[in-house]
Amino acid sequence: MFGYAGKILHVDLDTGKSSVEEIDEGYCRKYIGGNGFGIRLLYDHAPPGVDPLGPENPLIFAVGPLAGTTAPTSGKYVVHTRSPLTGFQGEAVSSGFWGIALKQAGYDAVVIKGKSEKPVYIFIDDDVFSIRDANALWGKDALETLELIREEIGDDNVRSASIGPGGENLVRYANITNDRHRQAGRTGVGAVMGSKNLKAVTVRGTGSVTVADMEGTLDHCKELYDVCQSPLTGAYRSLGTQVSVMIHQNQAALPTRNWQDSVFEFAEKIGGEYIHPRWVVKTLACAGCPIGCDHVTLVSEDEEGKVMASVEFESLYALGSNCCIGHFPDVNKAVDLCDRLGIDSISTGVTIGWAMECHEKGLLTKEDTDGIDLRFGNAEAQRQVIEMIAYQKGKLGKMLAKGSKAASEELGEGSEKWAMHNKGLEYPGYDLRGLKLSALGFNTSNRGGCHLRNSGYDYDLKGKVDRFTAKEEYGALVMGRDDLYSITDSLMLCKFSRGVLDDYEKFVKIYNLVTGFDMTEEEMRMAGERIWNLEKAYNVREGWKEEDDYPAPRIMKDPITSGVAKGHLVTKEEFRMMHKAYFKERGWSSEGIPTRKKLNQLGLGWIADEIHKEAD
Amino acid sequence: MFGYAGKILHVDLDTGKSSVEEIDEGYCRKYIGGNGFGIRLLYDHAPPGVDPLGPENPLIFAVGPLAGTTAPTSGKYVVHTRSPLTGFQGEAVSSGFWGIALKQAGYDAVVIKGKSEKPVYIFIDDDVFSIRDANALWGKDALETLELIREEIGDDNVRSASIGPGGENLVRYANITNDRHRQAGRTGVGAVMGSKNLKAVTVRGTGSVTVADMEGTLDHCKELYDVCQSPLTGAYRSLGTQVSVMIHQNQAALPTRNWQDSVFEFAEKIGGEYIHPRWVVKTLACAGCPIGCDHVTLVSEDEEGKVMASVEFESLYALGSNCCIGHFPDVNKAVDLCDRLGIDSISTGVTIGWAMECHEKGLLTKEDTDGIDLRFGNAEAQRQVIEMIAYQKGKLGKMLAKGSKAASEELGEGSEKWAMHNKGLEYPGYDLRGLKLSALGFNTSNRGGCHLRNSGYDYDLKGKVDRFTAKEEYGALVMGRDDLYSITDSLMLCKFSRGVLDDYEKFVKIYNLVTGFDMTEEEMRMAGERIWNLEKAYNVREGWKEEDDYPAPRIMKDPITSGVAKGHLVTKEEFRMMHKAYFKERGWSSEGIPTRKKLNQLGLGWIADEIHKEAD
Repeated sequence: MFGYAGKILHVDLDTGKSSVEEIDEGYCRKYIGGNGFGIRLLYDHAPPGVDPLGPENPLIFAVGPLAGTTAPTSGKYVVHTRSPLTGFQGEAVSSGFWGIALKQAGYDAVVIKGKSEKPVYIFIDDDVFSIRDANALWGKDALETLELIREEIGDDNVRSASIGPGGENLVRYANITNDRHRQAGRTGVGAVMGSKNLKAVTVRGTGSVTVADMEGTLDHCKELYDVCQSPLTGAYRSLGTQVSVMIHQNQAALPTRNWQDSVFEFAEKIGGEYIHPRWVVKTLACAGCPIGCDHVTLVSEDEEGKVMASVEFESLYALGSNCCIGHFPDVNKAVDLCDRLGIDSISTGVTIGWAMECHEKGLLTKEDTDGIDLRFGNAEAQRQVIEMIAYQKGKLGKMLAKGSKAASEELGEGSEKWAMHNKGLEYPGYDLRGLKLSALGFNTSNRGGCHLRNSGYDYDLKGKVDRFTAKEEYGALVMGRDDLYSITDSLMLCKFSRGVLDDYEKFVKIYNLVTGFDMTEEEMRMAGERIWNLEKAYNVREGWKEEDDYPAPRIMKDPITSGVAKGHLVTKEEFRMMHKAYFKERGWSSEGIPTRKKLNQLGLGWIADEIHKEAD
Repeated sequence: MFGYAGKILHVDLDTGKSSVEEIDEGYCRKYIGGNGFGIRLLYDHAPPGVDPLGPENPLIFAVGPLAGTTAPTSGKYVVHTRSPLTGFQGEAVSSGFWGIALKQAGYDAVVIKGKSEKPVYIFIDDDVFSIRDANALWGKDALETLELIREEIGDDNVRSASIGPGGENLVRYANITNDRHRQAGRTGVGAVMGSKNLKAVTVRGTGSVTVADMEGTLDHCKELYDVCQSPLTGAYRSLGTQVSVMIHQNQAALPTRNWQDSVFEFAEKIGGEYIHPRWVVKTLACAGCPIGCDHVTLVSEDEEGKVMASVEFESLYALGSNCCIGHFPDVNKAVDLCDRLGIDSISTGVTIGWAMECHEKGLLTKEDTDGIDLRFGNAEAQRQVIEMIAYQKGKLGKMLAKGSKAASEELGEGSEKWAMHNKGLEYPGYDLRGLKLSALGFNTSNRGGCHLRNSGYDYDLKGKVDRFTAKEEYGALVMGRDDLYSITDSLMLCKFSRGVLDDYEKFVKIYNLVTGFDMTEEEMRMAGERIWNLEKAYNVREGWKEEDDYPAPRIMKDPITSGVAKGHLVTKEEFRMMHKAYFKERGWSSEGIPTRKKLNQLGLGWIADEIHKEAD
């Protein structure tokens, strides 16, 4: 008889040993998979106050319970660790085909601790585990590494998640790449991997994935695929996330020149409508995905041949408008460079944007930049700095490799005022000054300035709320989405399944068909709330304070300069009002700490003592 | 050598005679075609103050210069007349294949005057013109008529534009139907046709359409078809205009229960996402259209068999939410009924919504309604009243057949306060109280409450302006779109070609390729302004005054009751502020009258004397 249960592979790089842990139905129901498993494993395996780049910090990979089934967009995986960029929960999601491979090899999660003496990579060959020498791979770029491992093993069907030079050199926003175009991009998970001398995690999964109700699952997924023909997925299908450039531009929500402006004079030239007919050569889909949002661009140039890249909206903002670069081939090249070097294009672009403003204001002279003319719009300079960051070259490279928070604290002279991050994580391309629900949602995200943990912009940009007016009721809306998306991220569905798999009724239906459990909608909702609270508790354990959620100073001080949102900003008072309403809605203390009562309610009483010095 | 020139067929139903007029390049360049030709012909051929239902009121059909070419979405036609519903410019656009047939028969426009003694239809058989007996067709429904004429002529390739019983019985918002699913719906053009004892205009066009630069046109149109793969057309392709129900609902912009509410509790059940998988059986495209927005629904019922209809967003609002009917099969049936009876579903639904509110408030008792329980949500009652309107049955049918303006004036007792129209034309489904640019745009439309003459909602609903704040600058935005869309409607392109053919550069390119002219962008823009000013001058000649543009009382008095737009309305002061700014932007007098200077500038000096009693 089928009984769904999770299997976790534990790896100790100090000893080279591995072991397998089985987790029971109770654990699965409480934490679902993916993000839920990840945060629980992080809470359990990371010692409080662990050095993010020290051997004791665990690096955790997890997939969802639907991985390898026919559920649409279920091919994602997540990486957890203590973030070297924020000091709080580190978390990054990727997609492609690596997650499916891990599941087919028999695992739901991998927990990696310790540090290898010399460069290695892990090979999970179904149930055979080995640690292999990576001396020849060390120093290779992330994309090349994927190919070299395939060649070495002699099988095109192995899937690797690899770091590039950025991860090796401990850039605090280094990422992990798989399937060439997909990255676990944010919070510096690649630096943690590099700190362990671990170049890649390679998987060959050839087993089959069993579901409780095969016929029911197939029938239901057929329906879901039909629903996938919705207008929203249609936009991503036809133009990819590149479509968002002009949507943001029209709403004066496209941060430009390090958020000095919110409308970009060259936006049209880096928007999907313009890019698509000129450079898009192929659209790709991840495992089990009927959308295929990945619009691969190929730019032919005289000097250096052809550059192929997968340029998402966030990169068009961070490396484009935010650095005032409006010539698409330049952005394409910068993205390719970031991907090869293995550093997050959002954090890279935003940190460079900060440095460009420092240069503009005379705080970074040519002496500080090793002679680079770091003015806004200088694409050549941008590429030089990207290389300096990845290799921690020079004073500038070393400073910027720390991210905009630490860099601005190091430089000082008021430059913190235009460092565009929350909790150290650089903001994505949504000008929060005219998106007030998002201002709450992005800044209360447990991993820092982030658009994915509740996607508040869905309310603001589609006019479902008055985006120019801060309201207490946004507390409840953000909380509802936090919890809902905790399940999306634990089932490990793509956010682009909006409209297809986006409420508890739908979550429970597919989850029960696959697992054979009898979860109710309320139990699922509570699991979402539990996961969110556990993340928060983790952050509180690592020193989170109310002020850490406050938006970057520029969001609270410098109004938007032009366009429909002209004059708008989010005052500290407005943010506090929404923030307090959010805490209240969550049943947390008025300073935002999960109460004993709330933790007990969610079956998290066992952590209450750790985060509460005294009873409340 | 090819020389583009227009040909107009003049028909006199009093005498049964016809004649052909050729128009020269100068006329074409000044008025472009379609709407431009229509308003110029109306101005020339309608005597001032003409009785809209008298024989002297001309009924004008016109197509655009791109009809019959490969230009995408160019298969539309327009009908002009003095409106029996508004007393101002009557104008209604339809699509399908009728317009192409007229062009292939050799004509750009048909002007019909006089009145036949007995029911007839016109048959334009390429260059052979005849008037045929329609005694056997009189009383038949509009859809049946199209088939009966095909049978009579014995050719499936003839295209007819026909009226139903509504037009025969002079319902002031009767429409004209072609190709089964397409209607020239608004302002009562079907009543004018009925007043002439004219059942149909049938065309067999077998000629070819010549263009100046064949190769250039083909190449360019190939590019345009590629661009048609844009996200916006994608939404209409996948879900039709039915997609708009949930978009409006989410923004609290879906008028409900005669605009007493703006959020409809059953919206989801009449939205595209819900309808599509259940009832849509086929999608249809008009001539030369790569979008195919027509999502035909088929509802099977036990009692009365199957009902097929083409249910657009506007019908889902007018006959659905506005009458509080949330069961899609009911709306489907009501739309089929309106289409067969040949009455405009928007005006029908809004007028019935008004009557339902009168019933709710005790102003229309069962005695007044011939015993019908006219409460909101009663679908059976709605269908009964639709029949009463079309046949002008009973006191209620006669009153409602006049439209909500005249009906409310007749009933009195304050019911004008909830009659939802501008200048007599019932509003489409956009709650203007929270769409303030649209409030200006819809109400300054020359044909009355209309979303198509400038589509101001494109700014409001997509967040390109702050929709909750009235601003002077909307004057310029609305004027810009008025003029631009005057060209769209004169080239006779579909509004859904937004993103494909939507600026003067693109207009000029395709127009010059087809005609061989050398129009500049500025000349084309000025043509748009000219056409708009000529429409306005026509209305001024027929008695237009500033107050005629004011929004319906409810929009200025009763705030939105729930949802994101809760509390919003457009005060008279706000409207006046935008209105005056609009007049100023247009170079009109402060009371909104086109000045001699402006008319002279546009080459319309010849009408200045008619609308100006004295010099200004």
